[in-house]
Amino acid sequence: MANPRIPSATVTRLVRYLRALEDLDQKGVERVSSEQLAEAAGVTAFQVRKDLSYFGSYGTRGVGYAVPFLKRELRQILGLDRRWRLAIVGMGRLGQALADYPGFGERFALVGFFDIDPAKIGQKVGGGVIEPLAALPQAVRTRAIEIGVVTVPREAAQEVVNRLVQAGVRGILNFAPAVVETPPGVWVESVDFLAGLTRLTYFVTQEVEGEWI
Amino acid sequence: MANPRIPSATVTRLVRYLRALEDLDQKGVERVSSEQLAEAAGVTAFQVRKDLSYFGSYGTRGVGYAVPFLKRELRQILGLDRRWRLAIVGMGRLGQALADYPGFGERFALVGFFDIDPAKIGQKVGGGVIEPLAALPQAVRTRAIEIGVVTVPREAAQEVVNRLVQAGVRGILNFAPAVVETPPGVWVESVDFLAGLTRLTYFVTQEVEGEWI
Repeated sequence: MANPRIPSATVTRLVRYLRALEDLDQKGVERVSSEQLAEAAGVTAFQVRKDLSYFGSYGTRGVGYAVPFLKRELRQILGLDRRWRLAIVGMGRLGQALADYPGFGERFALVGFFDIDPAKIGQKVGGGVIEPLAALPQAVRTRAIEIGVVTVPREAAQEVVNRLVQAGVRGILNFAPAVVETPPGVWVESVDFLAGLTRLTYFVTQEVEGEWI
Repeated sequence: MANPRIPSATVTRLVRYLRALEDLDQKGVERVSSEQLAEAAGVTAFQVRKDLSYFGSYGTRGVGYAVPFLKRELRQILGLDRRWRLAIVGMGRLGQALADYPGFGERFALVGFFDIDPAKIGQKVGGGVIEPLAALPQAVRTRAIEIGVVTVPREAAQEVVNRLVQAGVRGILNFAPAVVETPPGVWVESVDFLAGLTRLTYFVTQEVEGEWI
């Protein structure tokens, strides 16, 4: 962990608080209580106050938090006060779906699309053209790519991650259903929708059983 | 929450323990300590023991947990001791990528693929044919579909979720970048890869700043 004072789960919650603050800010709401933030993020008000206390105390008792200020602070803490340059490796359907995905927002710019399939090279995708994987190292350097999005099959994931690391990226967003390893200083986040699906089967199972007991 | 004793975060960790146990079982490992499970899941050994204690004590001091037994127990707790029938709504690139996704395993069967675009109806996708959304209610009933996978654009997400709920599904795996609401008894899990991306920018930012301080 870069900062050992901040547990990984806290970072996850900070992202949720930021979402809630962005929604409130868009609605013109200027102040929010820890109770309201807690409800929006699905945690307790105590948890909100504890999480935010890592970064100094922003709230005032009985008044709450100033929405625009706390939003700005959280964006800065989370590294969203700047633009990040991303490359996608693996231009199958998932890679292409992500290339067209409208939700990346202004903080994330897709500036490279790579594949090993000669039939795909040169094809246009959302905002660019598919390039051969061999062009990755130079692209990372010249385009200042910091984050690699990995959408290759499971078997190819570690090899592609190695190439991204060698090329110099600092973060990996891994969509492949595989655990990948990186050296210290290169972070991996895995998007694991089967974990979400299994949480779902847990809750549905409990509910169903609840009806019969 | 179906079972108020089990925090949602615990369910997330149970999924991770199960992953680790499945890996160990495949390697023929028969016993595992809470320390080993903790390392595999990225938590503390105390956390492992506490989480598993919700379901009775499976470990023996100095001996650890029996891998095949605990794996079976966790599968049962998580609802993975049976097969679930899923439908995908929204057969754009993401929906099609999921239809072809090899990682669903034997516990999840994709038995329906729906879209509103007349041009897509009748097209073949991994294991089926795209049907009109109007056919959803009957399909949910006759095919006993329990979980809906939502891969429609943000604007259409709530409407599609409403239709799935009316048709009688019990769980929603939501890929749309939108918060959707369901009545009590219908569970939603959102797959939010932008949250993962933001965790990444946090860690990379901290690391980068760490180098300069």
